[in-house]
Amino acid sequence: MVGPLIGAIEAGGTKIVCAVASSLEEILEVEPHVVATTDPFATIGEVLDYFAPFAASGDLAAIGIGSFGPVDHPTTTVTRTTPKVAWRGFHWGQAIRPVLDDLPIGFDTDANAAVLAEATFGAGRGDAIVVYVTVGTGIGGGIAIDGQPLHGLLHSELGHMVVPRDPADVFSGSCPHHGDCLEGLASGAAMAARWGQPAETLQSGHRAFDLEATYLTAMCVTITTMLAPSRIVLGGGVAAVPGLLSEVQQRTAASLNGYLALDRYTTGIEDYIVRPLLTGRSGITGAWLLGRNALEASALGEQRP
Amino acid sequence: MVGPLIGAIEAGGTKIVCAVASSLEEILEVEPHVVATTDPFATIGEVLDYFAPFAASGDLAAIGIGSFGPVDHPTTTVTRTTPKVAWRGFHWGQAIRPVLDDLPIGFDTDANAAVLAEATFGAGRGDAIVVYVTVGTGIGGGIAIDGQPLHGLLHSELGHMVVPRDPADVFSGSCPHHGDCLEGLASGAAMAARWGQPAETLQSGHRAFDLEATYLTAMCVTITTMLAPSRIVLGGGVAAVPGLLSEVQQRTAASLNGYLALDRYTTGIEDYIVRPLLTGRSGITGAWLLGRNALEASALGEQRP
Repeated sequence: MVGPLIGAIEAGGTKIVCAVASSLEEILEVEPHVVATTDPFATIGEVLDYFAPFAASGDLAAIGIGSFGPVDHPTTTVTRTTPKVAWRGFHWGQAIRPVLDDLPIGFDTDANAAVLAEATFGAGRGDAIVVYVTVGTGIGGGIAIDGQPLHGLLHSELGHMVVPRDPADVFSGSCPHHGDCLEGLASGAAMAARWGQPAETLQSGHRAFDLEATYLTAMCVTITTMLAPSRIVLGGGVAAVPGLLSEVQQRTAASLNGYLALDRYTTGIEDYIVRPLLTGRSGITGAWLLGRNALEASALGEQRP
Repeated sequence: MVGPLIGAIEAGGTKIVCAVASSLEEILEVEPHVVATTDPFATIGEVLDYFAPFAASGDLAAIGIGSFGPVDHPTTTVTRTTPKVAWRGFHWGQAIRPVLDDLPIGFDTDANAAVLAEATFGAGRGDAIVVYVTVGTGIGGGIAIDGQPLHGLLHSELGHMVVPRDPADVFSGSCPHHGDCLEGLASGAAMAARWGQPAETLQSGHRAFDLEATYLTAMCVTITTMLAPSRIVLGGGVAAVPGLLSEVQQRTAASLNGYLALDRYTTGIEDYIVRPLLTGRSGITGAWLLGRNALEASALGEQRP
């Protein structure tokens, strides 16, 4: 089904991915435009340069944005507590207005965009509860219930949950707010700080990954006991290191120790903690879906945030 | 508003509370009938003795049950992994059938019953997300979203989340499945085992409560970062110890350290982590609501589980 042209922005800490598509099939295939995340002024200038021709032609009907957080939803503002100092208080809606003036905007966190995509068309399709966690430079998470991202007073910031420190781990933790929360101990930034080299240069046999499996297992056990989801989708570069997923699966099943007496959490653990199905495209696809949802809401007369 | 007579059973590890009422006002006031939780045969006999006259009169229209878990919802079965060995595989629906034969049954965990009551009429009334945690002999939890208990593949078992052990705490943990999960470290049973005396005999200045505040704070931080609820309702005997709630409030705000930039999690923390409003009656009221929901569902033609 081909509909109107919808723009998508997946804003991460190192890059901002932009795309335009008129169908789900197209957003899953299209070559996106990538802009480095530097200071807001320069970055947004490049983003708008990409969208300008589409906007000028009058064919762009809506825009969806999945942004690094924390954000103030639905005002499209990055909160003043974001570790990305230059972006504190950045207002997406105002920033894109010069080029994308009156378009309906769909807005959420990057992790909520990703979980929306995975719960709608990916690894968690049809599942009652899906938790998406991306382990990259930081750790972000989103929860979908019946296919829709969950919002409480804020979005999920599950990267900042509390996990037990490994007794042998003397690294103080890299989170500027919490020190040794999950992100402070297990993000790519934490690994780089602990081992003194970029996480992506650590070889797969390095004991960094044994420690990483310990922390991600604690996370999976807490998510499972709290929510009993149908699926935990583990995305991001760190989680893609060969062998790590399997280790987290086995240790999670062992830690749960059969208490939650379901196949999914025991013999079926490999279908429970999984990689994203929309590999590398969960975020941009979810941003596109946010745009499509905003367009539909707009057609029903709802206000732009 | 007075409707038909509805029975309520709140089944806990030490006692089973039974009541019958025809309105919310009545269930909040009525003197309940309490049966000790011993072996299933004797216990259920006493429970049914209580309900028999109401059933015989033909006035009882439905029954609601909030049970210790884990349970298999909606089949009304206590799972074989429950620590209450004698109750493994216990089937509530079959057990009450001799007396309450054809009545619609509403069934959930005791914690989900409590969160249903608190989210509908209590401390979390009108809140988007409410988390109820009872800290007694064990630690049970329920999550309500838009007023309804959340079910994934199972109900929440958040008492079994992972928390960091206090470095000075050498107690190995009392959970038969997980050792030092939250329940294994912070339940009344854990406190009794650690300090060698029943938790209810510990004086309020005892350092047991300093440690308890540490563990409950870790729990509140993880719940907050994962779900961003509007309210955490802390019920149960241990959480009622003077001073403990206040300590958990202050430490949770300090641990979150302003990262989630909302008044509710900073200056408003006393309105965030709160005691139940339906003091001591959350569970039985929730069980009654489960019964009422079952009656309404039955009127709409749904099947008894």
